Amino acid sequence: MIIDCHGHYTTAPSAHTAWREQQLQAREAGRPEPAYPDIADTDVRKSIEGNQLRLMLERGGDLTLFSPRASTMGHHLGDLQASISWTQVSNDLVARVAMLFPEHFACVAQLPQSPGQTVDACVAEVRRVAELGFVGVNLNPDPSGGHWSAPPLTDRYWYPLYEALCEEQFPAMVHVSASQNPAFHATGAHYLNADTTAFMQLVQGNLFADFPQLRLVIPHGGGAVPYHWGRYRGLADMLGRPDLNEHVMNNVFFDTCVYHQPGIDLLLNVIDPTNILFGSEMVGAVRGIDPATGHYFDDTKRYVEAAALSDQERRAIYSDNVRRVYPRLDQMLAARS
Amino acid sequence: MIIDCHGHYTTAPSAHTAWREQQLQAREAGRPEPAYPDIADTDVRKSIEGNQLRLMLERGGDLTLFSPRASTMGHHLGDLQASISWTQVSNDLVARVAMLFPEHFACVAQLPQSPGQTVDACVAEVRRVAELGFVGVNLNPDPSGGHWSAPPLTDRYWYPLYEALCEEQFPAMVHVSASQNPAFHATGAHYLNADTTAFMQLVQGNLFADFPQLRLVIPHGGGAVPYHWGRYRGLADMLGRPDLNEHVMNNVFFDTCVYHQPGIDLLLNVIDPTNILFGSEMVGAVRGIDPATGHYFDDTKRYVEAAALSDQERRAIYSDNVRRVYPRLDQMLAARS
Repeated sequence: MIIDCHGHYTTAPSAHTAWREQQLQAREAGRPEPAYPDIADTDVRKSIEGNQLRLMLERGGDLTLFSPRASTMGHHLGDLQASISWTQVSNDLVARVAMLFPEHFACVAQLPQSPGQTVDACVAEVRRVAELGFVGVNLNPDPSGGHWSAPPLTDRYWYPLYEALCEEQFPAMVHVSASQNPAFHATGAHYLNADTTAFMQLVQGNLFADFPQLRLVIPHGGGAVPYHWGRYRGLADMLGRPDLNEHVMNNVFFDTCVYHQPGIDLLLNVIDPTNILFGSEMVGAVRGIDPATGHYFDDTKRYVEAAALSDQERRAIYSDNVRRVYPRLDQMLAARS
Repeated sequence: MIIDCHGHYTTAPSAHTAWREQQLQAREAGRPEPAYPDIADTDVRKSIEGNQLRLMLERGGDLTLFSPRASTMGHHLGDLQASISWTQVSNDLVARVAMLFPEHFACVAQLPQSPGQTVDACVAEVRRVAELGFVGVNLNPDPSGGHWSAPPLTDRYWYPLYEALCEEQFPAMVHVSASQNPAFHATGAHYLNADTTAFMQLVQGNLFADFPQLRLVIPHGGGAVPYHWGRYRGLADMLGRPDLNEHVMNNVFFDTCVYHQPGIDLLLNVIDPTNILFGSEMVGAVRGIDPATGHYFDDTKRYVEAAALSDQERRAIYSDNVRRVYPRLDQMLAARS
C-alpha cells in the first residue's frame, strides 16, 4: 500500500473559494458572513476525479492524507472569527472528499489560527475534527503570513494545542500558508524557510521532553535540513544538545516532497528511513513536467522507486511509517481489512 | 592554489567589539561616539595566527577572502550613522589583517546598511574600499535582522548599489547578519533562509537583464536551493522564466559551506562546477569536530577532495572560478606572480 502523507485540496470547487472572498469582504464591511454555498457532490467528485485521484492512481498510489489548500488557509487574513468559520467549512469540505472516496483519502485539518490569538480555537477544532474521523492537523508556525511574529514552536504559547494533539493521537504537519511579505515567494522560499526554521527551533529547545508523544512532520523534505545535516549535527553539539537522533528524531519526520532524484537520494542517504514519509504535495507547488525526465516534477514515487532502498525500507516509507505516525489512520485501515 | 571565498573575522580583538558596545550605548544616550581604540599589530596578528591562518595552512589552503564578522554587522542596531562608522572601522580592521598577511588574505567589505535608509552610504563605502584594495562586498538582503522589511533584491531600491558594484568590478556575497527575531536561530535558520529567499527573488525577477555584469555569491551552499533544484526548475517553468542556467546561473555562484560529505556531493552533482566557489566560513558557525569523521565539520576541503571531480573541475572550484568572479582578486594575484 502506498500512502501519500501530503496532499491538499488545491482544486476545490470555485464556489468554496469565492465564499472566502465574500466572507472577508463582509467582515471588512462589518456585515454578517454570507451563507456558505450548496456545493453538489458531483462538483466535489469532479474536482477530485480529474485531478488528485486520477494522478494518484496513474502513479500507483493508494491513499492520500488530504487537507485544505495550504496557501489559502490565510491565517493572516481577517480576524480570529473569520479564521474559525473558514477553517470549519474548509475542513468539512475535505471530509466530504473522504466520504465520497473513502478508500483513497483520509482527512487532515487546517487549524483556525490567527496572529496574536491564543490557540483555544485550535484546540476546539482539534476536538471537532477528531469526532469527524480526521487523522491529523496542519500547524502553521507563522500565522502572520511571512512576518514571523509568533513565538517559536517550543514556546509554552503552543502547549494547550500540543496537549490536545497528544490526547487525540494527532500528529501535526508544520506547514505555513501564503506569504504577504514581498521578500518571500510562497512555494519557492516561505515554505522551505518555515521547514528549516521549525527544525532549528526544535534543536534549540527541548519540546519533546515535555511532549514525548508529540509527532511533527516537517514537509518538503525537511526544507534545507537534510542537505545541511552536518551543520545541524554541529550546531546541536555547540548548543550542548544531545545527538539529533535522540534529541528530535524520535518525534520528527520528513516527507519526500523533493522534486528531483539527487535530492531524494540525499534525503534517503542522510536521514534514517524510519523518519521518512512518502509525500508528493500533488497537485501543488510544481505542476509541470520535467523536460529532463519527461515526467511530472512532483511524481516523487518515481524517485523513491529509483533510490537504493531495501524492500523493507521502501515499505516503511510508503506505509509503515505513516501508519505509525498517524495512529488514527492505522486504526482506520486496520478496521477495514 | 586554494582560495576560500568565505571567511569572516570572527576572532577580532576584544577592544574592537567592546568599542561597538560603547558606540551603541553612546548613540543611545545622545553622546558622541567614543574614540576608536588603538589596537596593536601584535594583537591583530595573534588573533589570526592562532586561528584562521593556522587552520587554513593546516588544511592546505592558501588564501581567504576575509570580511568582518557577519553576525556582528548588526545593521538593525543603532541608526545609519552608527552603521557607517562601525562599518568603516570593521572594514579598516580586515584591511589591517590583509596588510599583515598579504599572501593569505584579501579583503571583502561589509556595507553600512540600515533599515529603511537608501543605499547611498553603501555606494560611498564601495568607493572607499575600492581605493583600499578590497575585492568585493557582503550584501545583507535583510538589514532589519529577521523581520524582512527590505524590498527584494530585484527591486530598484538596490540599483544604485548594483551600479557601483559593477563599476568597481565588485561581486557581492548575499549574507545576512544576526537575527533579532526569536523565531530564527541565526546560523541554523536565518542564514540558510536568506540564501534560499535571495535565490527565489532572483528567479522571480529579471535583475541580470538590467545588470548583466553583476555577480552574486549565495553562501552556505545556496541554502536549500541545490537540494530542491527540481522545485526551482519547476517553479521557473511555472513562472514563465527561462531555464535557470540562462536566467540566473550566469551571475549566481554558490560556495561549499556545507558541512558533510553527502551535502557537498549533492551540490557538485546538481550545480555546474563553474558556479561553485570553494568556501568554509572558518572559523564560523560550526566549530566542533564531527565525531563521525574525527575532522572539523567546517573542513570543507576534505569533502571537495573526496568528491568525484576531475582535476580541472577541482581547480575551477578552488581557484579559477573565484578569480573569474572577483576580477580584482585576479588582478592582484596576477600582479604578484
